Amino acid sequence: MMKAVCLLSGGMDSSTLAYVARDMGYVVYALHMAYGQRTENRERECARKISELLGAEEFLEISLAYFARIGGSSLVDRAMAIADHVEGETAMPSTYVPFRNANLLSIATSYAEARGADAIFIGVQASDYAGYPDCRPEFIDAFQRVIDLGTADSTRIRLITPFVRMNKADILRTGIDLGVPYEHTWSCYRSDGPACGRCDSCFYRLEAFRRVGARDPIAYAEER
Amino acid sequence: MMKAVCLLSGGMDSSTLAYVARDMGYVVYALHMAYGQRTENRERECARKISELLGAEEFLEISLAYFARIGGSSLVDRAMAIADHVEGETAMPSTYVPFRNANLLSIATSYAEARGADAIFIGVQASDYAGYPDCRPEFIDAFQRVIDLGTADSTRIRLITPFVRMNKADILRTGIDLGVPYEHTWSCYRSDGPACGRCDSCFYRLEAFRRVGARDPIAYAEER
Repeated sequence: MMKAVCLLSGGMDSSTLAYVARDMGYVVYALHMAYGQRTENRERECARKISELLGAEEFLEISLAYFARIGGSSLVDRAMAIADHVEGETAMPSTYVPFRNANLLSIATSYAEARGADAIFIGVQASDYAGYPDCRPEFIDAFQRVIDLGTADSTRIRLITPFVRMNKADILRTGIDLGVPYEHTWSCYRSDGPACGRCDSCFYRLEAFRRVGARDPIAYAEER
Repeated sequence: MMKAVCLLSGGMDSSTLAYVARDMGYVVYALHMAYGQRTENRERECARKISELLGAEEFLEISLAYFARIGGSSLVDRAMAIADHVEGETAMPSTYVPFRNANLLSIATSYAEARGADAIFIGVQASDYAGYPDCRPEFIDAFQRVIDLGTADSTRIRLITPFVRMNKADILRTGIDLGVPYEHTWSCYRSDGPACGRCDSCFYRLEAFRRVGARDPIAYAEER
């Protein structure tokens, strides 16, 4: 049996991702990381539920509280505000957590090497979040090389990013086909519940549901 | 003033490294990481002392306890034994912590980006630990590319590895010239004190002191 470490935040992309990995025949090792973001409790609860529902082999939960001490992001620094979504904005969002994805992928690689896993699934997408440098396909390619060089010679771990060139509506369509229970996923940057409906993450989620013509099963304080 | 994040374990290499960075004119941001290794208390104490003595701007201490849960290394798994040094051994040592240096460098990069630092110093060397894949120069070059692609476009962080092609005796000579207080450094893999004198790390340390013709100021249970 092939094994895959799946980065599972509990959001709609990563939850869909874990179902994709299972559908491809992988035994799933779910890896959830909390890093001091405002909504970490709700995300953890969702990730745990998704992992249970899809029958993951393991659910490993890691706390990266150090991100709050390093600072530099509105996602982890309570003194900074999370901005509402602004259409056409191309600058780096304040929610960017410095080099976060490299941290997540490094841990995933350690976990994959220790368990003898064949692959790591990560749900990055280049299009929706153009402002996050660590979602770019070139970043992923460069990280693959770091994995190849930085692990044992006998270790072969493939970084798989099924969504890197997809948009959120495509991802949602894939997930609906696979029966992903979106009521157990969380995307809002601001609140543990109900979702604010106005941050970047709510905006893109709601837009995806609208484009697909489906109803988002979670509760919103306000829908734009 | 140029700023550098220096990975400071509290061992002889990383302590020398921090003095080299200061000597090159950098303001030092010391980053110490404990990851459940047996000697973490002694290493932390040494790192803190070195950081204080050299006048670091900050001392950030991060606990990566997750390595013990991921497992796969005798350094963090108490059920595995740490072997004595064996001359001429070329296999990967059991003390290899899967992909550890990528984890350390990812955190260092997050920290450097958040503080606007220009450089990250890491004391890896290719020669003494041929069995550790994440000490190779090619690994470091690949990680530099990940930094360039995975951080903000305005961020420029250089990975500096002064020791990558040096041996431990050369490093020690450099440190003695710079006045590094080696009594406040710790290398033993096995014990918080006295040092065992027999693990790979003690072996290479003692050999370096012998080659340089200096006396190691720390206490050993046994010297070979």
